[in-house]
Amino acid sequence: MKTIGFIGLGIMGKPMARNLLKAGHKLVVYDIIPAPVKELVEAGAAEGASSADVAGRSEIVITMLPNSPHVKEAVLGPGGVLEGAKSGLILVDMSSIAPLASQQVEKACAAKGVKMLDAPVSGGEPKAIEGTLSIMVGGDKDVFDSVAEVLGAMGKSVVHTGLIGSGNTTKLANQIVVALNIIAMSEALVLASKAGVDPKVVYQAIRGGLAGSTVLDAKAPLVFQRKFNPGFRIELHLKDLLNAMDTAHETGTSLPFTGLATEVLSHMKSAGKGGLDHGGLVQYFEALAGIEVK
Amino acid sequence: MKTIGFIGLGIMGKPMARNLLKAGHKLVVYDIIPAPVKELVEAGAAEGASSADVAGRSEIVITMLPNSPHVKEAVLGPGGVLEGAKSGLILVDMSSIAPLASQQVEKACAAKGVKMLDAPVSGGEPKAIEGTLSIMVGGDKDVFDSVAEVLGAMGKSVVHTGLIGSGNTTKLANQIVVALNIIAMSEALVLASKAGVDPKVVYQAIRGGLAGSTVLDAKAPLVFQRKFNPGFRIELHLKDLLNAMDTAHETGTSLPFTGLATEVLSHMKSAGKGGLDHGGLVQYFEALAGIEVK
Repeated sequence: MKTIGFIGLGIMGKPMARNLLKAGHKLVVYDIIPAPVKELVEAGAAEGASSADVAGRSEIVITMLPNSPHVKEAVLGPGGVLEGAKSGLILVDMSSIAPLASQQVEKACAAKGVKMLDAPVSGGEPKAIEGTLSIMVGGDKDVFDSVAEVLGAMGKSVVHTGLIGSGNTTKLANQIVVALNIIAMSEALVLASKAGVDPKVVYQAIRGGLAGSTVLDAKAPLVFQRKFNPGFRIELHLKDLLNAMDTAHETGTSLPFTGLATEVLSHMKSAGKGGLDHGGLVQYFEALAGIEVK
Repeated sequence: MKTIGFIGLGIMGKPMARNLLKAGHKLVVYDIIPAPVKELVEAGAAEGASSADVAGRSEIVITMLPNSPHVKEAVLGPGGVLEGAKSGLILVDMSSIAPLASQQVEKACAAKGVKMLDAPVSGGEPKAIEGTLSIMVGGDKDVFDSVAEVLGAMGKSVVHTGLIGSGNTTKLANQIVVALNIIAMSEALVLASKAGVDPKVVYQAIRGGLAGSTVLDAKAPLVFQRKFNPGFRIELHLKDLLNAMDTAHETGTSLPFTGLATEVLSHMKSAGKGGLDHGGLVQYFEALAGIEVK
């Protein structure tokens, strides 16, 4: 069995690495924060001294980091993956980053004989723990096939989406739809409230028709219960929308609604609400409408 | 069995009236256009000479008209329902109009001893023909109960949503969600295309997760097939969004996304595309992004 390096043991990375151990893989782990490294070592992983050290001891390296700059630093920077990598190493970056960044990192990898896939996930911490993430994978199909089983230990849906960067493009498309569907629900429910109609009745009346959505069924009940603990935090969704807008600008795509949504999420973050679940975006529209709720 | 008057035999009204006849109701019908009146008379309905005449010969009058001014004209105008109505008549306005207009018409009705419900529908022509519309009904609960069986001949879901106007408010909430969900899908698919990823792959990768919606499953395949015949026409959806924005302004509700969506639909109408299915809104975003498609 191949040795897998795992770099980035945060809220998502730690349970994903655990699921690889459970599936019987040999793991070498690294994080700049010692506590989760210690946890994984107790669970059976070896400890790497740096990203370069992890890469030198592995056939496959997985990175799970916050955003594009962190991935560039961990792969291309001093003490990074490319410094230690043997030729033929496969790097699977499972971070949600800008597709252009994936393409740039892949180019640098290719120059050193390292094959790279971008493989961002959706589903959040609960599905990371269960090993039932959705994984969207861009890059060479042969390379994808060679790691599909490893990815299968972390996700229930592992889809090859196209060339390098396409995993992250697919993830951004997903995040655009989710953000705008939450906003659609918010404006509809706020208008109903202000017009004197019970939003719960509206929800029940419309959910079975063309207005129905997974967002509506997942988030409207939480709005009614005023439950805004994450879930998926507004500040993380903002990061994705900023990457979507960067990608839009680089590719000559004008996205007026996603652009406006980005400003809404940005306001929520600066107002100190970036830690709320993205269902909490309804508070922005309630405030605009002068609705007083707890 | 009570005699039902039916005013407005358009694309929706004609099949709805037919379903009342099929259910065994006595019908008196009226429209300013003679052809559909003739059809209904051949099917067994009596012909009214005017809205007032229809009202004088009925215990229940249903109106199914394009928008608020038409309803006001047919009910409050010369030769209108209130001119001919006996006290105790029940008026069920099934048009999709502004909730405030429903409330205004109801007040004038009440002054003449006429009880009124607003009962807009969703589902479009196919469900009007099948008798499987969703009907959202605002007004007095006792009055609702007394006509629920009659409405049941036209719809499979007949929901009491609250006070007069709440049927139309619920309908507007529905139309806000549908319009913005179509726009969400459009921006996501256009970004994917421009970033070099197959939108069909993106659709398959995201439809099972939080981005899933009835709109996505109903409209994305039509986008891929370039099928934009209605369905539900952009110009009708525009009418609903204009009523939503009027309602927003009257109730002190700011809806930036619905407002922007209204401008998109308005542009499509002035560009001669108001007759397309609302799934055709994707063309607005394709044009913004400079995508050439047939």
